[in-house]
Amino acid sequence: MISKIDLTNNKMVNKNLNKEKIIIGVDIGGTNTVIGIVDFNYNLLFEDSFPTLPNNGINTFVKRLVTRINEVFLIYENSYSLEGIGVAAPGVNYLSNTIESPANLNWGNVDFIEIMKNYFHTPISLINDANAAALGEQNFGKAKGMKNFIVLTLGTGLGAGIVVDGNLLYGENGFAGEIGHTIIEINGRQCNCGRNGCLETYVSATGIKKTVFNLLCQDNDKSELRNLNYEDLNSKQISEFAIHNDPIALKAFDYTAEILGKAMANMVAFFDPQAIILSGGLVNADNLLLEPTYKYFEKYLLNFYKGKVQILVSGFHNGEAAVLGACSFALKSISNAQIDHNIVIDND
Amino acid sequence: MISKIDLTNNKMVNKNLNKEKIIIGVDIGGTNTVIGIVDFNYNLLFEDSFPTLPNNGINTFVKRLVTRINEVFLIYENSYSLEGIGVAAPGVNYLSNTIESPANLNWGNVDFIEIMKNYFHTPISLINDANAAALGEQNFGKAKGMKNFIVLTLGTGLGAGIVVDGNLLYGENGFAGEIGHTIIEINGRQCNCGRNGCLETYVSATGIKKTVFNLLCQDNDKSELRNLNYEDLNSKQISEFAIHNDPIALKAFDYTAEILGKAMANMVAFFDPQAIILSGGLVNADNLLLEPTYKYFEKYLLNFYKGKVQILVSGFHNGEAAVLGACSFALKSISNAQIDHNIVIDND
Repeated sequence: MISKIDLTNNKMVNKNLNKEKIIIGVDIGGTNTVIGIVDFNYNLLFEDSFPTLPNNGINTFVKRLVTRINEVFLIYENSYSLEGIGVAAPGVNYLSNTIESPANLNWGNVDFIEIMKNYFHTPISLINDANAAALGEQNFGKAKGMKNFIVLTLGTGLGAGIVVDGNLLYGENGFAGEIGHTIIEINGRQCNCGRNGCLETYVSATGIKKTVFNLLCQDNDKSELRNLNYEDLNSKQISEFAIHNDPIALKAFDYTAEILGKAMANMVAFFDPQAIILSGGLVNADNLLLEPTYKYFEKYLLNFYKGKVQILVSGFHNGEAAVLGACSFALKSISNAQIDHNIVIDND
Repeated sequence: MISKIDLTNNKMVNKNLNKEKIIIGVDIGGTNTVIGIVDFNYNLLFEDSFPTLPNNGINTFVKRLVTRINEVFLIYENSYSLEGIGVAAPGVNYLSNTIESPANLNWGNVDFIEIMKNYFHTPISLINDANAAALGEQNFGKAKGMKNFIVLTLGTGLGAGIVVDGNLLYGENGFAGEIGHTIIEINGRQCNCGRNGCLETYVSATGIKKTVFNLLCQDNDKSELRNLNYEDLNSKQISEFAIHNDPIALKAFDYTAEILGKAMANMVAFFDPQAIILSGGLVNADNLLLEPTYKYFEKYLLNFYKGKVQILVSGFHNGEAAVLGACSFALKSISNAQIDHNIVIDND
C-alpha cells in the first residue's frame, strides 16, 4: 500500500518535504490501460500500459492496477513524493464522480474513487477519458490557446471531449459529449450500449473490424482477411493489410473515413469549433484513415464553414493526452480541496 | 420614414419623453414574416404577419417590410416612442452581424442592418431566428430558469437555438447550432444548402411534404393526397388529411417523428440538456407529430439520459418567441450601446 500523505488530526503531514512532487495519471481504455508519472511541471517521467481485460471484473482490474502502480512507483519512491492519482475512464459522470455503465467496460455503475481509497491514502480524482484528452490537448497539445474545439478519441469505442468558450462541456447531468453514441443508422449495427446504429459501431477499432466482416460478405474481392476469424482480428492488422493493398482492408478504411468525415461535418454544424483533433490507434495508421477523412469532411461540410475548421492529429501517443489531462485535473482538484479545507485534505 | 430618435451633435435627443417606449420585433421566416410591437415590460401589444415571398429579392422584401412597419406604427405613433427594431432571421452570423446565405432565403449575403438604415433612424439589431426563439423561451417562456436547453423551430426549414450554461452557443465563427443542416442520410434528399440528406429536408414543413410524395411513390395506399400537386400542397393540409385518417398523411407524420425523435436523442448525447423545446406550425398540428416523436425519442435515447430530459412544446404562437427574443436582444444592444457610448447612440 502506498501512503505518501498521512492524515493525523485532520492536518496534512507530508513526510517528503524535500522530495519532488509527482502525480500518477491513469487512462483506462476498453482494451489497454496507460499509467504515467508526471511532475508538477507536467513532464511525463514514465509511461507504461497493460491490457485492461474488463471481462475479469472491476475488482480484479483494480487489484492489477494497484500492483502496477506500486511496481512503477517503487522506482521513484526515494526521490519523489506522490501527491495524487488522476484517473481517466469512459462513462465518468462529472457530477456524481463515478463511472456509470460505460459501453465498453461491462462493470455497471462503479464508485471507482471509493474502491481506490482501499489501497491509497493520496487524493484520487476521476474524469471522463475524452474530457481528460481534451484538457491534455488544451494545456499541453494541439489545442493550446483554443476556446472552441473537439477532441475525438478513436479506440475500442469513440469518445469526445468538447470545449465551448474555453470550458469543457458537461451538460445538465455531467454527461455531454457522448458522440460515440449518436445513432447514425436506424436498425444499424448492435452497440454495447443496448441500442443499434451508434457511431462507434462504425468508427472505432471495433467498428472497422465489423466493416471488414461486412465487406467480406458484400464484396467478392480476393483478400487475405478471409483467412482470419473475427475474434483474432484487430485494427492494427487491418492497417497492415491495407498498407499491402488488400482491397477489403482499403475499402474498410474508405468506408470508415466517409462516416467519420460526415460525422465531423455534422459536429461542425452543431458547435462551429475552431478545430477537431483526432487521436487513437486508428488515426495513427499512416494516412490510411486521415486522407479519405479529409476528403469526405470537405465533401460533407456546409459551405459556410469551408476553410474555417482545422482538422488536426494529436501529437501525443495513445493515452498520453488523457494521462496528462487526468493529472492536470487531479492537481486542480487538490488545489481546490486545499482552498476549500484550509490546507487540510480529507481522504476519508 | 419613421424617425423617433434624432441624432444631433452626437447626442440622443428623444422627442417623445412622455410617450411609452416600445420596440418592434420582426421574425423573417422562409414562408411568413411576423411583426410584433413590444413595450419595455415585454408585453406584446400588437402582432401581424405577411408572406415573405423571398423569390422577389431582398430589396422588394425590405420595401414591403418597411411599408408594413410604417402602417402598423401609425396606430401607435401618438402614444408610443419607437426605441429600436430587433430583427430575427435565418443565417444570421453573430460576429459579422449580417445574414449569410440562408438555405431558405435565396438572398445570398445581405447586410440587412445597412439596408434597414436607409429607412429608419432608430437602432436596429439582428439575431439568428432560432437563437431569438431560444432567448424568448429563456426570458418569457418554457425555458425560464433553465441553463442547458435546445429550442427547435420547425418551419420551412429546421432551426436550433442552443443554450449552454445559461448562454447562447455561438461557436468560433458565430455560426453554431445549424442542426437543420446536419446530414442524416448520405445521398439523401437534395437540400437548398447545396448538399444532400440534411435533417431539414426530412423534418420541417417542406420535409413532410417531400415525405408524402415519397410515400405516394412507395406505397399503394388509397389517399386523397394523390389528387394534389407538389406545388399546391402544404403541411397544414397534410395535418388535415391525417386528422381524417388518410393513411399516407398518417405515415408521413410517423416517418417524420421517427427521424425527429432519433435526432433529438442524438442532440441529448451531444449536449445533455435539461429540455428540448419544440415550436412551429408542424408541432402545433394536434398530437400528430408530438405523440410519435415522444415514442421514438424514448426508443432511441441512451439509457443514462432516460427520465432526465423534458420534451416541451413552446407556449408561443408561431414567431412570437422569436419576436420577443429579438426585442430583448435589441433592448440589450441598445443598453450596451448606451454604456459604450456614454448615452450616445450612433446610428451612422
